[in-house]
Amino acid sequence: ARPRVGYYYTGKTSLQLVSDSIKKITVKEYQSIPVVVDKNVSVYDAICTMFLEDVGTLFVVDNSSILVGVLSRKDLLRASLGKQDLTTLPVNIIMTRMPNITFCEKDDNVYEVAKILIEKQIDAVPVVKRNGEQLEVIGRFTKTNITKALVDLIHEDM
Amino acid sequence: ARPRVGYYYTGKTSLQLVSDSIKKITVKEYQSIPVVVDKNVSVYDAICTMFLEDVGTLFVVDNSSILVGVLSRKDLLRASLGKQDLTTLPVNIIMTRMPNITFCEKDDNVYEVAKILIEKQIDAVPVVKRNGEQLEVIGRFTKTNITKALVDLIHEDM
Repeated sequence: ARPRVGYYYTGKTSLQLVSDSIKKITVKEYQSIPVVVDKNVSVYDAICTMFLEDVGTLFVVDNSSILVGVLSRKDLLRASLGKQDLTTLPVNIIMTRMPNITFCEKDDNVYEVAKILIEKQIDAVPVVKRNGEQLEVIGRFTKTNITKALVDLIHEDM
Repeated sequence: ARPRVGYYYTGKTSLQLVSDSIKKITVKEYQSIPVVVDKNVSVYDAICTMFLEDVGTLFVVDNSSILVGVLSRKDLLRASLGKQDLTTLPVNIIMTRMPNITFCEKDDNVYEVAKILIEKQIDAVPVVKRNGEQLEVIGRFTKTNITKALVDLIHEDM
């Protein structure tokens, strides 16, 4: 019979408790503000925006905030190696576009998104809100956000 | 009196157990292979190396593997905005140099390094071995490694 005390054995190992804690954390608790550029801006202007906003990934939108592309530092660096004039090359030539964009939603679990970032070898994904067939960009979720979640998880305990 | 059963209350909360698990993980369990360039190579060649090796940070060394600088994607992108010819501009002009380089050692705790990456707003640090006054580069530790550690921690439980 279970001892009648104010606590009892839950049958969980410490690793299961770790998992339980982390699985409760959702994207919306750690997501960052998205930084977007219009699909018609030049690669040069996109690189400037990346510096001014101090982010590693830009989301490319049409004129109603609908996601049409993603630009990583890697995409922009690759373009800078080319012979083209960066001030006239439009970002929509070099961006990653649908259906190749990986994204997440605000109620997704941080752990699931972490797995996806590792599998796909990417640093960040847009957080989107579905609007029929279209995806509206509402946030940015990165390995920095995941690192922060991990640090907070332990910090709370100190 | 403590009930005499095969388990007992440890006085730890689940968050403390989370911390305990994570604090046991050291840098050497998750570090990556460092990618280095000589201090005399051009910015153009450094960007090419970054692509060939598929990394976000390069370490700059002198001819005996001693750390003299760090190059992030951001440093290289900034250089690409300038008017200089990237094929003749040497990396030692644009790199971050000592004493401004943040580094870690192989027995450091993943959590402590995670806190440093967040505080300093950087994506990666070299893992070094002290050799008198000099630092020999033996690894690379990044937010990707931290994300992997978090995913593994939970995955073990499934």
